[in-house]
Amino acid sequence: MSHSDRQPLEGTTVGIFLAPEGSEEVEFTEPRQAVSDAGAAVEVLGSETGEARTVNNDLEWSDSYEVENTFEGVSANDYDALIVPGGTVGADTLRTDEDAVELLRQHLADGKPAGVICHGPWTLIEADVIDGRTLTSYSSLQTDVRNAGGEWVDEEVVVDDGLVTSRDPDDLDAFCDAIVDEFAATAE
Amino acid sequence: MSHSDRQPLEGTTVGIFLAPEGSEEVEFTEPRQAVSDAGAAVEVLGSETGEARTVNNDLEWSDSYEVENTFEGVSANDYDALIVPGGTVGADTLRTDEDAVELLRQHLADGKPAGVICHGPWTLIEADVIDGRTLTSYSSLQTDVRNAGGEWVDEEVVVDDGLVTSRDPDDLDAFCDAIVDEFAATAE
Repeated sequence: MSHSDRQPLEGTTVGIFLAPEGSEEVEFTEPRQAVSDAGAAVEVLGSETGEARTVNNDLEWSDSYEVENTFEGVSANDYDALIVPGGTVGADTLRTDEDAVELLRQHLADGKPAGVICHGPWTLIEADVIDGRTLTSYSSLQTDVRNAGGEWVDEEVVVDDGLVTSRDPDDLDAFCDAIVDEFAATAE
Repeated sequence: MSHSDRQPLEGTTVGIFLAPEGSEEVEFTEPRQAVSDAGAAVEVLGSETGEARTVNNDLEWSDSYEVENTFEGVSANDYDALIVPGGTVGADTLRTDEDAVELLRQHLADGKPAGVICHGPWTLIEADVIDGRTLTSYSSLQTDVRNAGGEWVDEEVVVDDGLVTSRDPDDLDAFCDAIVDEFAATAE
């Protein structure tokens, strides 16, 4: 890419959720890198600022990452796009943070795009935003998705009106490509 | 207790579920001990026989326990009562075992009692057996429970027609007392 090329997410700000403990590391780091490489400013959002421990394969501690802003301290107006990683315990915890749920709900209600992977869609269920939408998730969530009114499909990546979803870390390449494309389409 | 006292669960067989990894240790060991102390024969059921690793507080490995029979290799006729522990990752895994789900579904359809705690109710949701029932669970599951047709309440123990549920490890004393009472009532 020459210096004269405009990057697809230049000028946009993306918020990425991180649980206090137990978000899946690669589902946080790889999407963050992808949108950053595409020119976005990225902010890490959590229930409280400070270090958050991530896991590999759900049950092994991996590394710690800095939470820069709290869900409570930000507004849906602050972000052009949002990303929600999985990790069973992390995603189960994120859905219990009412400010995280409300941020995601308002963001989608405003017609802005989001990428949600693996167990992350529990927060979509909590936000009550999937009735009538088509999405995927980690396979264990499919009954919860259907009971919330969503159409669950078994595909590596699904894009439905700005909502990008994938099943698990094996889908990350497709997920990262799709969020950059979808976030760029809305940013134009 | 004198030798002439009949124990409340004497002559009964209780099956207790254990995930391959990530069941919450105390939600497995304490109910198992309670029904065993009450005279029940207890069998540990899993997706495959052999050692299964449990956790403490969801994200720290604790100990390993022996799975004695597989869900696939047993029948609902084999048990007078069933117990399903939580642990976020363990419970998320148990719900994906179709034989575990079918065993629990058939057992409840036969009018027999079960004790399910913390994140364990995901397997009840998967078995599609809570529509119209009142229950509790770990608080993060309440939307999933309601979306599956259940009436979710915030109480340390709930008994609804043989189904005993509790919220988390802090409720274990009440949960253990209630499962022994309820299992004994049905065994009479």
